[in-house]
Amino acid sequence: MKKPDLGTIVGLILAFSLILIGNHLEGGHLSAVIQPTAALIVFGGTLGATMVGFPLDEFIRAMKTVSLFFFTKAQDPAKVLAEIVRYAQIARREGIIALEEHVQKAEDPFFKKAFLMVVDGIDSKTIADTLELEIHHAEEKGELPAKVFEAAGGYCPTVGILGAVLGLIHVMSNLSDVSKVGAGIAVAFVATIYGVASANLVFLPAANKLKIKHREHMRLCEMTQAGLLALQQGQSPRLIADRLAVFVGDGHGKPSGAAGGAQAEKSTKAAA
Amino acid sequence: MKKPDLGTIVGLILAFSLILIGNHLEGGHLSAVIQPTAALIVFGGTLGATMVGFPLDEFIRAMKTVSLFFFTKAQDPAKVLAEIVRYAQIARREGIIALEEHVQKAEDPFFKKAFLMVVDGIDSKTIADTLELEIHHAEEKGELPAKVFEAAGGYCPTVGILGAVLGLIHVMSNLSDVSKVGAGIAVAFVATIYGVASANLVFLPAANKLKIKHREHMRLCEMTQAGLLALQQGQSPRLIADRLAVFVGDGHGKPSGAAGGAQAEKSTKAAA
Amino acid sequence: MKKPDLGTIVGLILAFSLILIGNHLEGGHLSAVIQPTAALIVFGGTLGATMVGFPLDEFIRAMKTVSLFFFTKAQDPAKVLAEIVRYAQIARREGIIALEEHVQKAEDPFFKKAFLMVVDGIDSKTIADTLELEIHHAEEKGELPAKVFEAAGGYCPTVGILGAVLGLIHVMSNLSDVSKVGAGIAVAFVATIYGVASANLVFLPAANKLKIKHREHMRLCEMTQAGLLALQQGQSPRLIADRLAVFVGDGHGKPSGAAGGAQAEKSTKAAA
Amino acid sequence: MKKPDLGTIVGLILAFSLILIGNHLEGGHLSAVIQPTAALIVFGGTLGATMVGFPLDEFIRAMKTVSLFFFTKAQDPAKVLAEIVRYAQIARREGIIALEEHVQKAEDPFFKKAFLMVVDGIDSKTIADTLELEIHHAEEKGELPAKVFEAAGGYCPTVGILGAVLGLIHVMSNLSDVSKVGAGIAVAFVATIYGVASANLVFLPAANKLKIKHREHMRLCEMTQAGLLALQQGQSPRLIADRLAVFVGDGHGKPSGAAGGAQAEKSTKAAA
Amino acid sequence: MKKPDLGTIVGLILAFSLILIGNHLEGGHLSAVIQPTAALIVFGGTLGATMVGFPLDEFIRAMKTVSLFFFTKAQDPAKVLAEIVRYAQIARREGIIALEEHVQKAEDPFFKKAFLMVVDGIDSKTIADTLELEIHHAEEKGELPAKVFEAAGGYCPTVGILGAVLGLIHVMSNLSDVSKVGAGIAVAFVATIYGVASANLVFLPAANKLKIKHREHMRLCEMTQAGLLALQQGQSPRLIADRLAVFVGDGHGKPSGAAGGAQAEKSTKAAA
Repeated sequence: MKKPDLGTIVGLILAFSLILIGNHLEGGHLSAVIQPTAALIVFGGTLGATMVGFPLDEFIRAMKTVSLFFFTKAQDPAKVLAEIVRYAQIARREGIIALEEHVQKAEDPFFKKAFLMVVDGIDSKTIADTLELEIHHAEEKGELPAKVFEAAGGYCPTVGILGAVLGLIHVMSNLSDVSKVGAGIAVAFVATIYGVASANLVFLPAANKLKIKHREHMRLCEMTQAGLLALQQGQSPRLIADRLAVFVGDGHGKPSGAAGGAQAEKSTKAAA
Repeated sequence: MKKPDLGTIVGLILAFSLILIGNHLEGGHLSAVIQPTAALIVFGGTLGATMVGFPLDEFIRAMKTVSLFFFTKAQDPAKVLAEIVRYAQIARREGIIALEEHVQKAEDPFFKKAFLMVVDGIDSKTIADTLELEIHHAEEKGELPAKVFEAAGGYCPTVGILGAVLGLIHVMSNLSDVSKVGAGIAVAFVATIYGVASANLVFLPAANKLKIKHREHMRLCEMTQAGLLALQQGQSPRLIADRLAVFVGDGHGKPSGAAGGAQAEKSTKAAA
Repeated sequence: MKKPDLGTIVGLILAFSLILIGNHLEGGHLSAVIQPTAALIVFGGTLGATMVGFPLDEFIRAMKTVSLFFFTKAQDPAKVLAEIVRYAQIARREGIIALEEHVQKAEDPFFKKAFLMVVDGIDSKTIADTLELEIHHAEEKGELPAKVFEAAGGYCPTVGILGAVLGLIHVMSNLSDVSKVGAGIAVAFVATIYGVASANLVFLPAANKLKIKHREHMRLCEMTQAGLLALQQGQSPRLIADRLAVFVGDGHGKPSGAAGGAQAEKSTKAAA
Repeated sequence: MKKPDLGTIVGLILAFSLILIGNHLEGGHLSAVIQPTAALIVFGGTLGATMVGFPLDEFIRAMKTVSLFFFTKAQDPAKVLAEIVRYAQIARREGIIALEEHVQKAEDPFFKKAFLMVVDGIDSKTIADTLELEIHHAEEKGELPAKVFEAAGGYCPTVGILGAVLGLIHVMSNLSDVSKVGAGIAVAFVATIYGVASANLVFLPAANKLKIKHREHMRLCEMTQAGLLALQQGQSPRLIADRLAVFVGDGHGKPSGAAGGAQAEKSTKAAA
Repeated sequence: MKKPDLGTIVGLILAFSLILIGNHLEGGHLSAVIQPTAALIVFGGTLGATMVGFPLDEFIRAMKTVSLFFFTKAQDPAKVLAEIVRYAQIARREGIIALEEHVQKAEDPFFKKAFLMVVDGIDSKTIADTLELEIHHAEEKGELPAKVFEAAGGYCPTVGILGAVLGLIHVMSNLSDVSKVGAGIAVAFVATIYGVASANLVFLPAANKLKIKHREHMRLCEMTQAGLLALQQGQSPRLIADRLAVFVGDGHGKPSGAAGGAQAEKSTKAAA
């Protein structure tokens, strides 16, 4: 189910390698930008500020989403659509009760919860209300990890400047030895680099990707809710497939998961 | 259907040529601002950061919208209005069923989908709900390409500063050879120029234009929805033309597509 | 109808003259800040970027609003209120049909359109819906000129910095002739001045004023809609005047157009 | 009714005196930061830009709110609550008509208007609609003075930088006389100080306080509306006091005007 | 009930110690960044500006929330859920009236108020409206302390720059004694450090944490409202536990308070 997120991996490699190659071609040495003390100041300060800014469990939860950043765990909407359509066919042929054995197969907890309520025969208004509340809370809660990285991306360039100014103070207090001034300033500047690079190449893009993935997950939940409620009301599998198609394509006209869509269509026709 | 987008083309030529002429008049040489290594750092870093920040397929989709930036593919609202009015006349004279042969002529996928549902005789509430959902999703999805360019425009000035500081570190480490200091700083500054210029002359304006074009496309979809639903309810072509007129003008009183409006009016009168 | 906008004119004169007087008192020469090449870079770049950022017709429309910036064309809400009240009196005495001859006198296209629909006896729900849609679209469309100036005000300080850095690159490449360094830097700084001054003294305040004027115009449209619908429903002129009074005053208690309000009251009493 | 606003007065004194004492302890002279020409540039430019950015009458209205900044004119919500409860008791004992003599005592124009409508026996839906509209407009209009100061606080640091760059240009053109360079730069920096200090110590905090006071005033209007409507419907004074209590406390559990609350309660008990 | 907030404490220690260790390793002395006059300027100016920006009582209330920053007083949602479920069981077995003796045990004022209304037998619509209004006001009021810290975090870096420029002016006026220039600049830079560090390591993260804690408190109030209203309507304890579960978990599928949830479930089963 886990697929490597090529965008993140290629993007990170491109960003860092091209910048370092450029630096090398200009005559800069890699060693000049590797300074453990600057890293200690910038990343230590950012780490501390971010921990102060969020409840500890949210901070830890955000740290755990780092894998989500390199791997795509999200289910393919086209597959979920096909699954819902298949269940709708079973429900039509054999009654909703026949779906009972399929509930345990559901992997996504939201899908499972909604499916269970439908199979249990709870009235559709209660299901709709419960799922609505669930989605509403998941929406709010699910944004927090992205906000943790966004906050880190906001603090670290300033902590980088703080590190640079600390270095400059040190340099300025020892102006007498002019030969060391340039090198001192160079060292001070590395903190700026760390702050700016980690914010713009890592933290802020990561926050952005987490936000989009979260939004896609929410769309999937909305599709699940709409699909299972339609199934419960006994709508035709074909109509369900039509209505949910909008959740699968990328805007109208160009469905992104053509194969999955076709798959859903095929199984719909088979059932007709 | 594709018309070159004069604003983009003239704007880009004006911006770059006037800045370079100004630079030339001040005595600067073009060669001084052409530095492949600075370009490698700034554009490589920005490319990588943007790839990290968005799902790969969204990133690729945004890249494909570049043509949308130089060409206007959007349909003229006045023409779409005239088309809807013409179909409304046919529907009044010969019944909605007579529109069947015209469905295939529709080019815009949204128009086609809506038109097909109307001709198929689906009840108007279902059509309205389906199109509403479609518009809602298209609105969200369609904003992503603009957001990709906006993100790129946010990252690249900072990556430019990063490139400049990398250059300055190199200069500072070699202060001994004073004769080269000035030239080194000049080289370092070019990265800033690349970052600032690409953000403010290209990425951010491009994002803005994409947003406005997307909004206009959404307005067209809203007009299509309103018009075809009115057609289905058998409203008079004249009334439809009146109600949709607001989607064509630029605010009230000054219709931007006077010709198209007149055209719609003429065909309406002919039908009365 | 056009009145010069004293705020804009006095504000611009004050801003530029006080800054230049201050500069003169500090010993600066006006000639030092007049540099056609810097102007070419800053205003050329900003012009180009803004053209790229907006559809060409929106850009041109924004250019045409420049007169709106120096002149106030907006109607006095108190006068419009008095007009509506007067028509309400006529409608009460002689019937709505008697208003037919007054329709052509209406100058504002929105007022005219609404008035025409009322006199034509169209049902009030259709009028309300049509005007609602019209206001909604006018609200969105009418914000664009302000956004054009806002965008220009966002691009030009950065283009100013770009011009300054271009100048500094030129200076840095010729550090050998130290006597010219200071003058070169001074020249480079002028681009910054142009960018910062045009953004903060012209573009951003202009965008702000356009936004407020647009909002006032929208309030007038809302008042027209409310007033003419009340007229159609045959409400008493006095009640209409009371209800619309809120659109005229500046918050409660202190009507800004006391004279106009009194005028409306007088004509109401005369009619009672 | 006017009470000095201790926060503003103590805050301004603290901010300026502590900064100047700090400057003095560091060895700086007050005379070094007093420069009429820098003040002319920074405050003249900001004044002009703000006048350009707002309609003249809004600008003047904002100037008049300066007293609101040093004095608190707002009514104590607890007192208004007690007043409403007292009137509710009278209305219960002697009928709403008995309140007629009290209408003239009302000082706040909104309270008076609402009170008058209640005593006049206008139906409660009309009263609710009229007050709703009034509150809606007062909300929008009342934000403008805060926005004027916010805009001024946005322009003035940039105008300060403009003044500094103008000074630096002057210095750079006269680099030959090195002995004067430092002093010249010092003079130029004062413009930055004026811009940054006036924005962060005066304009932006002032805008913030105006916003909060405006919001509190709006809450009072909402309470007046809710209270007088409940009075009209003949609700028990005790119930009214209970429902309005939420407008008086600072969140739940800790009423800020304990005395006033007690007062309201006492008079309620006396009436029971 | 008060638990130390480990995130805040560890975060602050990490941020400051790692930065100071980094500074020490780079050869900087702690004494170089300890300057009472810079602290006087930066913190005095920020204190004053923040006092100007907020009503005095809000400022004081924000100061009092500092303990909230180091200690977590929030109730565990799982415990509150278990409590509501337990009361629902009692209400089912012995009637709502039997809850009377438990009202006094409620610690949270919102819970107590809601509980009291339920036990008093007030109709559920009135309870819902009153609690809605209470939550709405608490939401608005409760955000203010976070806004106070946010404002302080916005003012203090600029006041830091102001302090630095004041120092630089002093240095520039005494350029003659070159040996002291470097030290003077170093001293001036410390103000920048104070401003940037206090904003990014303390004020802004603190504001963020206060906001999140406030949001969690609001969720608890929403849960209390939903739970007690369900209890009043006589819903089964099991159903109540199910519906409120969404307020306890961190999104769906992974309840954060597993123990508490289990506890609620157990007591539910015991009651079944």
